[in-house]
Amino acid sequence: MSLVMTADDLNQFLETVFLEVAGEFHVEEVSEDQVVLRLNVSDKHLRPGGTVSGPAMFGLADVTAYVATLAQIGPRALAVTTNCSIDFMRKPAAGVDLLGTGRVLKLGKQLSVTDVLIHSEGMDKPVARASLTYAIPPRGSAADVTM
Amino acid sequence: MSLVMTADDLNQFLETVFLEVAGEFHVEEVSEDQVVLRLNVSDKHLRPGGTVSGPAMFGLADVTAYVATLAQIGPRALAVTTNCSIDFMRKPAAGVDLLGTGRVLKLGKQLSVTDVLIHSEGMDKPVARASLTYAIPPRGSAADVTM
Amino acid sequence: MSLVMTADDLNQFLETVFLEVAGEFHVEEVSEDQVVLRLNVSDKHLRPGGTVSGPAMFGLADVTAYVATLAQIGPRALAVTTNCSIDFMRKPAAGVDLLGTGRVLKLGKQLSVTDVLIHSEGMDKPVARASLTYAIPPRGSAADVTM
Amino acid sequence: MSLVMTADDLNQFLETVFLEVAGEFHVEEVSEDQVVLRLNVSDKHLRPGGTVSGPAMFGLADVTAYVATLAQIGPRALAVTTNCSIDFMRKPAAGVDLLGTGRVLKLGKQLSVTDVLIHSEGMDKPVARASLTYAIPPRGSAADVTM
Repeated sequence: MSLVMTADDLNQFLETVFLEVAGEFHVEEVSEDQVVLRLNVSDKHLRPGGTVSGPAMFGLADVTAYVATLAQIGPRALAVTTNCSIDFMRKPAAGVDLLGTGRVLKLGKQLSVTDVLIHSEGMDKPVARASLTYAIPPRGSAADVTM
Repeated sequence: MSLVMTADDLNQFLETVFLEVAGEFHVEEVSEDQVVLRLNVSDKHLRPGGTVSGPAMFGLADVTAYVATLAQIGPRALAVTTNCSIDFMRKPAAGVDLLGTGRVLKLGKQLSVTDVLIHSEGMDKPVARASLTYAIPPRGSAADVTM
Repeated sequence: MSLVMTADDLNQFLETVFLEVAGEFHVEEVSEDQVVLRLNVSDKHLRPGGTVSGPAMFGLADVTAYVATLAQIGPRALAVTTNCSIDFMRKPAAGVDLLGTGRVLKLGKQLSVTDVLIHSEGMDKPVARASLTYAIPPRGSAADVTM
Repeated sequence: MSLVMTADDLNQFLETVFLEVAGEFHVEEVSEDQVVLRLNVSDKHLRPGGTVSGPAMFGLADVTAYVATLAQIGPRALAVTTNCSIDFMRKPAAGVDLLGTGRVLKLGKQLSVTDVLIHSEGMDKPVARASLTYAIPPRGSAADVTM
């Protein structure tokens, strides 16, 4: 697989298209094998006891898979998640960011399948794993974004 | 299966234990067959175009399964989601709340399994379906909540 | 949703197209709401202790979802499963058949999503639940089967 | 994580406890990182067109996760699958075996979570991915197997 967007491209895309999550996510690394996305954990992501909430972890998995797919197909605002399976395995560490590592396992014309591992920064063992399917809109449709 | 908490009990529990989501969710109905939970949709749940975000739908599915489980086992703050599989099937309607309908399919000593259908209020066809597994802490542990 | 195949049509289709499972499955009921498929349990489906194996239950869920989709779109040999999430909740009863009840939750041009509950015949509580996504080949392709 | 069973131990265990699949599976590799299991593809695993069936791939994923868990906890006949999510991504190649590669992501007292990738032998791109949860019976119970 080859890359058509860099980490800078992807960060600019997120800031342009997903204003409502601007500042929440940052693309740290993009390579042919994987992308790494940071969730800048703040109060709104926390549950009682100071641990990151399930929806915040789901959101990180979702955006990681989206970014991993876009890195290979270019900017498409309308790609939509059709399925997610997620296992919550450990409690996230308090006071540190979460990192999502995404690997695209299949990139078809209509669907992509991406595996995501989520770690508390600095920890070895993953706090969650997820796999996500994205439906990719046809090329040339209104979903192509000119940046 | 028999019920040990009413809709009022569950709403009071959510307000007491989940302060950070107070006002977001409201238990509408509790019966032996199912519970219905409302997501009071506001700006923070929306994506560009005015549609409810994936993480907000995941959160509704998660709390619906939690409430459906608690209705049968009583208040346990520490029950945790271990797995969720969710299919996003249609775009939610703009400007209306979402309703989650949960049915507990298995209630074991250690695990519960709950199916959830999510509808835009007033619409026939579901926007999403999910199944969730909860790990239930042992009775008598610190997880029992005195209200 | 409207039906384009009856239980007899579907049984004839299975016998014609899936020779290798002929005799294993029988469509019991087809309505606008649901289909019911029987797995004729025999020695090859059993694990030690006489319980039905996981792969046999997966196969029942898979064919139930396939039959539920075909009942609404007509015979297409090439529809393929792209995703399945399955929860095994109870041990099947020994010495009785399994019944799969499928409900199509979404029927799009490219994808169908179906929920399946599996019961031991005569038992109230489900032994497993599953949700499956099928990719539907374009109409008019070689996948259309003339019977 | 440390290993308590070798590939030879695991193959002997499968032959002893799972007589009905003897000859179907062979443990190829066991390391601290992963296990590799071979499905010896034969006629009974095939669908029309000569491709490996969904239930056969599910079975390979299931036994791979089981073997990966046993390698770390020792022989327990009664560990049971509680959940599986599987994505079918490509058609398996005809005439070659399938290999399942399993990595245990979590090993708790009651549950293990394992990721599995399935490849046609000699091919780079995976045909399927799966994640499976196993419920582990308490140590000292009848589930411990003396070999």
